[in-house]
Amino acid sequence: MSKPFKRILLTGAAGGLGKILRDRIKPWADVVRLSDISDMGEAREGEEIVRCDLSDKAAVLNLLEGVEAVLHFGGISTENTFENIMFANIQGTYNVYEAAHKHGVRRIVFASSNHAIGFHKTTEHLDAESPTRPDSMYGLSKVFGEQLARYYWDRAGIETVCLRIGSSFPEPKNPRMMVTWFSYEDLVESLRCSLMAPRVGHTVLYGMSDNDGVWWDNRKAGHIGFHPKDSSRQFRHMFPDTGAYPAPDDAATLYQGGGFINDGPMYK
Amino acid sequence: MSKPFKRILLTGAAGGLGKILRDRIKPWADVVRLSDISDMGEAREGEEIVRCDLSDKAAVLNLLEGVEAVLHFGGISTENTFENIMFANIQGTYNVYEAAHKHGVRRIVFASSNHAIGFHKTTEHLDAESPTRPDSMYGLSKVFGEQLARYYWDRAGIETVCLRIGSSFPEPKNPRMMVTWFSYEDLVESLRCSLMAPRVGHTVLYGMSDNDGVWWDNRKAGHIGFHPKDSSRQFRHMFPDTGAYPAPDDAATLYQGGGFINDGPMYK
Amino acid sequence: MSKPFKRILLTGAAGGLGKILRDRIKPWADVVRLSDISDMGEAREGEEIVRCDLSDKAAVLNLLEGVEAVLHFGGISTENTFENIMFANIQGTYNVYEAAHKHGVRRIVFASSNHAIGFHKTTEHLDAESPTRPDSMYGLSKVFGEQLARYYWDRAGIETVCLRIGSSFPEPKNPRMMVTWFSYEDLVESLRCSLMAPRVGHTVLYGMSDNDGVWWDNRKAGHIGFHPKDSSRQFRHMFPDTGAYPAPDDAATLYQGGGFINDGPMYK
Amino acid sequence: MSKPFKRILLTGAAGGLGKILRDRIKPWADVVRLSDISDMGEAREGEEIVRCDLSDKAAVLNLLEGVEAVLHFGGISTENTFENIMFANIQGTYNVYEAAHKHGVRRIVFASSNHAIGFHKTTEHLDAESPTRPDSMYGLSKVFGEQLARYYWDRAGIETVCLRIGSSFPEPKNPRMMVTWFSYEDLVESLRCSLMAPRVGHTVLYGMSDNDGVWWDNRKAGHIGFHPKDSSRQFRHMFPDTGAYPAPDDAATLYQGGGFINDGPMYK
Amino acid sequence: MSKPFKRILLTGAAGGLGKILRDRIKPWADVVRLSDISDMGEAREGEEIVRCDLSDKAAVLNLLEGVEAVLHFGGISTENTFENIMFANIQGTYNVYEAAHKHGVRRIVFASSNHAIGFHKTTEHLDAESPTRPDSMYGLSKVFGEQLARYYWDRAGIETVCLRIGSSFPEPKNPRMMVTWFSYEDLVESLRCSLMAPRVGHTVLYGMSDNDGVWWDNRKAGHIGFHPKDSSRQFRHMFPDTGAYPAPDDAATLYQGGGFINDGPMYK
Amino acid sequence: MSKPFKRILLTGAAGGLGKILRDRIKPWADVVRLSDISDMGEAREGEEIVRCDLSDKAAVLNLLEGVEAVLHFGGISTENTFENIMFANIQGTYNVYEAAHKHGVRRIVFASSNHAIGFHKTTEHLDAESPTRPDSMYGLSKVFGEQLARYYWDRAGIETVCLRIGSSFPEPKNPRMMVTWFSYEDLVESLRCSLMAPRVGHTVLYGMSDNDGVWWDNRKAGHIGFHPKDSSRQFRHMFPDTGAYPAPDDAATLYQGGGFINDGPMYK
Repeated sequence: MSKPFKRILLTGAAGGLGKILRDRIKPWADVVRLSDISDMGEAREGEEIVRCDLSDKAAVLNLLEGVEAVLHFGGISTENTFENIMFANIQGTYNVYEAAHKHGVRRIVFASSNHAIGFHKTTEHLDAESPTRPDSMYGLSKVFGEQLARYYWDRAGIETVCLRIGSSFPEPKNPRMMVTWFSYEDLVESLRCSLMAPRVGHTVLYGMSDNDGVWWDNRKAGHIGFHPKDSSRQFRHMFPDTGAYPAPDDAATLYQGGGFINDGPMYK
Repeated sequence: MSKPFKRILLTGAAGGLGKILRDRIKPWADVVRLSDISDMGEAREGEEIVRCDLSDKAAVLNLLEGVEAVLHFGGISTENTFENIMFANIQGTYNVYEAAHKHGVRRIVFASSNHAIGFHKTTEHLDAESPTRPDSMYGLSKVFGEQLARYYWDRAGIETVCLRIGSSFPEPKNPRMMVTWFSYEDLVESLRCSLMAPRVGHTVLYGMSDNDGVWWDNRKAGHIGFHPKDSSRQFRHMFPDTGAYPAPDDAATLYQGGGFINDGPMYK
Repeated sequence: MSKPFKRILLTGAAGGLGKILRDRIKPWADVVRLSDISDMGEAREGEEIVRCDLSDKAAVLNLLEGVEAVLHFGGISTENTFENIMFANIQGTYNVYEAAHKHGVRRIVFASSNHAIGFHKTTEHLDAESPTRPDSMYGLSKVFGEQLARYYWDRAGIETVCLRIGSSFPEPKNPRMMVTWFSYEDLVESLRCSLMAPRVGHTVLYGMSDNDGVWWDNRKAGHIGFHPKDSSRQFRHMFPDTGAYPAPDDAATLYQGGGFINDGPMYK
Repeated sequence: MSKPFKRILLTGAAGGLGKILRDRIKPWADVVRLSDISDMGEAREGEEIVRCDLSDKAAVLNLLEGVEAVLHFGGISTENTFENIMFANIQGTYNVYEAAHKHGVRRIVFASSNHAIGFHKTTEHLDAESPTRPDSMYGLSKVFGEQLARYYWDRAGIETVCLRIGSSFPEPKNPRMMVTWFSYEDLVESLRCSLMAPRVGHTVLYGMSDNDGVWWDNRKAGHIGFHPKDSSRQFRHMFPDTGAYPAPDDAATLYQGGGFINDGPMYK
Repeated sequence: MSKPFKRILLTGAAGGLGKILRDRIKPWADVVRLSDISDMGEAREGEEIVRCDLSDKAAVLNLLEGVEAVLHFGGISTENTFENIMFANIQGTYNVYEAAHKHGVRRIVFASSNHAIGFHKTTEHLDAESPTRPDSMYGLSKVFGEQLARYYWDRAGIETVCLRIGSSFPEPKNPRMMVTWFSYEDLVESLRCSLMAPRVGHTVLYGMSDNDGVWWDNRKAGHIGFHPKDSSRQFRHMFPDTGAYPAPDDAATLYQGGGFINDGPMYK
Repeated sequence: MSKPFKRILLTGAAGGLGKILRDRIKPWADVVRLSDISDMGEAREGEEIVRCDLSDKAAVLNLLEGVEAVLHFGGISTENTFENIMFANIQGTYNVYEAAHKHGVRRIVFASSNHAIGFHKTTEHLDAESPTRPDSMYGLSKVFGEQLARYYWDRAGIETVCLRIGSSFPEPKNPRMMVTWFSYEDLVESLRCSLMAPRVGHTVLYGMSDNDGVWWDNRKAGHIGFHPKDSSRQFRHMFPDTGAYPAPDDAATLYQGGGFINDGPMYK
């Protein structure tokens, strides 16, 4: 049976999640083009390797040639200086969308982040229409990317699913991740749904597994048809009950963004 | 054990869904009165057959005599000329409610349709309070029926469940029906709940099974107690993933009403 | 200076408000075509008289030929039997829209009514998105007309302002009309705004003057640019304060539709 | 393994639910202090017994000494005269919060009740932000307690989960309780979640099992992480379908509070 | 011309606002009954003086005999101990409503307070449906009174306007009162509207003049027909512009309740 | 009398609005520091001139030294290439906020733009919480600035009023500007209110005069206390009524952003 796409592009292929996705997305396209600023090793069967700095407009224009859909995971994925974030994430994402527009690419999945809304409290509940509250320069660049995607949808008809990824690791590392955990299997399934749904327009989807105690509601992305199969419940024994309440001003438990709020060079 | 009702009426008993329901609703009443403009064959045990044109006010007044509750499935169920729709669906439904009022009938289940809201986009999510957006003369007649029911509730105390039926067929016929599919079993269960709930007032219930990717949210009809048992997931293999996106202006995938929007004699 | 339109149509020109409008709308078009089922007298300068039953589809098709915009005030304007309402208001309004579609008319002002929402309580506050609650067969036909207009906007691009007229008389006749009063000057100004605004899509506008104690909020129709100049305050002396509270179940003060709820042949 | 708390307090320990909880909450604290105005028998291992009238401010101040968290189930739990309710529930709850403030207690679970919202109709659907509608003096005292808790959170930083308990009995006693049933196991689990969640601020949680036909939506309390395991579905055979609709003005089926509305000495 | 009422009752007639109202409400009733726990001097023409402790149930029952409507301004009007507040405001208001119910009184205007919502921030905007956030024991007693009124409306059909009075003084005393100022003339007019409107059900009305920079929106009380005539703008010269921003944690400018939050004996 | 501030900073002082403001803001501070990338002429009394490229982080750090509040009007104010916008508006605004944080500046007024929400339709009505819909690279940079301001409020306590300026010119130049016009007097008053209000947190204020037909609602910024004095009504004669409706796909009348949507180098 033929694959859904002839060629899709994965940016950030050498990053933490890029490595996880590299093999798992192969069933979706005859050719998977992989891109990163870092070394990605040899191209394997069904792969194309294109090393590329996303802040290089001309290079990105070439990168998107012949591509039908993009999984945009490239850029910096933790807190950093504003300048580094600006070139890698703001200018880089602009370059990707402008190239997509030039080449007629119809759909992009944008790896956004919970840090776009990280300054909401952990007693608040959000959906796709809740206001953004970035908790860091990194989170701010993700808000920018979502709004850029909105512009390219309204202006140029490029569809985007903004996937606000929680914590995608083999297992939760702390109590907060019991809430935000996003298993690799569920991440892959969310990407599949985002690429294959007939219409997505500009959709915001929270990337989380079927965990208990969650803050986010995905009903407004229901048309994507994504339903997680995993849950952090299996790891509950790792974090036993405790009556030791956090300090009233402990930012890492007050806000959804967790410890991220205190990262980065600015406030040190 | 005695049955819940002495006599209920099913209009449209010779139609597509009427035939499905004819046997399945027997456990709910000592006598099921069946009505249609077309031939319904012989009356079987526990049945009464009354052939009737719903646009005939006097005939409909007779039809509802001695009835405790009505399943109103009669009328035209696809796009047609305005005039045909007006007599069968608008005048016909008025005649049913006025007769119900005259005879003191307390509750009606009205077979409404997703075409009452078909001009909402397939990236929108609706509940019972979303504005109607009819996609056809047929859909417009269903909006009329729902509002007529609202009037008879406010004015005369007749309770109605407006069941906005998705696609009730043995199995989905196209990708859209993966979203809108309503199994016969779930249809019957939704009718049972609608008839038996102690209080329904004027309730709007979307008629769909437990499918993935749905656009409709039934929480505001939660008091009905309807929970679907079936799902279109079992048919997923029939519609494999595709990266062939529909044309940007393809109405059948842009709007929830699907191809219906282009049916009927008016726009040809 | 040339007038904005070459030809506009006023239906219902022999009715209560039609007579008021006949002269006042002349500044807007070189030719005002007047239509009614009743006699309208002689055509004056700048007028065309076309006697027409709106339930006659062919006649209505002729009526709209050469027309740029329609003020649709025709039909029955008080409670009546369902059948009379159906032919005059439901079929009649359908005929107007279908003819508008055939002739490429771009905009219609539809004389809707507060009776489309008359079953809301007098302690409730509504705007353009509040659910309709018809209080009569008449009100139900206005809901139908508004939804028909919605359909012709979504499907055929015809713009409509649905003007939910309160009580348009020389002065308020009872305490309720202190709330719902709509001076003739304000009525005319609302029509001018509705015709001249560059974009109206499908807009619902409540027709009331700048009265005290109102139930309706026109902000969602703000783009029309209508601002009433009159107010029922000038008539306040006609209805002195009273501590004689109405009976708890007095429908005429409980519901926004007032005494209308008890009119008509059905409940007598 | 050590228990989460050193000492927690259960008020109302001799009451209906207090007796159920007495043993079940032992795993959460080295010492469970039990309090009631009535006799509680002998203290068992891991228990402290303190007989106390909650309307006695000084006694309550002593009662909370050395306590880390409170399960406040004390007071009158059915309709009664206003005066009795005022002393036991209004003054009593004030005394508990003021003592908690004096002793630096960080968290309280307040046994509120569905009767705080009992005058909503059974066709309405509520969440944590729906307006309260007390159906009795008892319900009014629960609204007071929730607002008192709100004040102590805003003013003094004491966290509270207001648990609006439905009907916590071994099994449903009537059709209404099919909707409101709250199994003992689910009650205990909801308390565990309420005590152990890292942040709760001022949270309203409806206390019900995973029943069909429910009126209440707990998503805004999602951060508590409570998921019921039981359901009233197992008792469905006890209440067979019926077409015998209740009288239009039957308060016990019209309102969520059920028969409670007619209890108490005032309206007899 | 006869006056609207035969007899109305003003409680708290010896208090700050009671004295202001005493003469101004005379045009509304043949007899104004005045009540207070303190001395009110001699009865003048058209007055009845009844000295009464509102916490005395039997006395209050007598107090309301023969009364058509109540302006309930009695009780404690500043922060105080919980116990004092409980007897004067909570028990006192209960006694008033229960007596009103016994005597068939149809309407009450309840002098509520902005301190019922005082813990909302000064950058928030509220209307009648915003959640209450009491800022003091006093504010909590006003929330109780509003909910008691809600109960007596739902249960017994007594209508109430809850007037959340801002700052009713001859002129603003500080910058906060520029926002919350409620002139005596506007206070009286709001009472007149509240008494004379044909239907009020349970209405919440914010008591403020037409000031700049307000936090409260009275549209949901529009049916009362109250429109302030005064404005604090006339006092603007008293509070010149300043760039001296308050400390970030200054409660009196952070919260709508102002300095009240720090009053009372509890936190000293 | 002393002025409210010792020193405030105006960036973009050589721009269109900067020149207008230069003299008008003098009453608010002993010293007005003026900054621009272009020549600003000689410093006059009470002025300091600092020529500065906002994309130069070190220079901006110096620029804000000794400043109490900032009116940030600097950067590019029309559509341009993404790269130019990125350095001037995105990096430039970051530099301003980071310098404000370093120097302890408490408040900034950010000159945002209606182009942050320009892709909403002209039949939609927005308030401060409506989602942004940038219509250009320029508009996107304003969304970025608003979100950056949000971050610096949540993280660092810097207050911002985001002033979404409509069309600030001596008079409207086209029919759209009848809606969006913002007189210079009203602009200045809005800045005064934004600087002097005791608390603003993160406030979005639409910059428009008291025009007819507006799309924007400033109630959620009511605490600023801004009330426009001017109106475009005085210019109504310049744009006479017309029945010549724009083409259905004419972007300049379909969207609030007007012709801006088609500006810039990208789509040519």
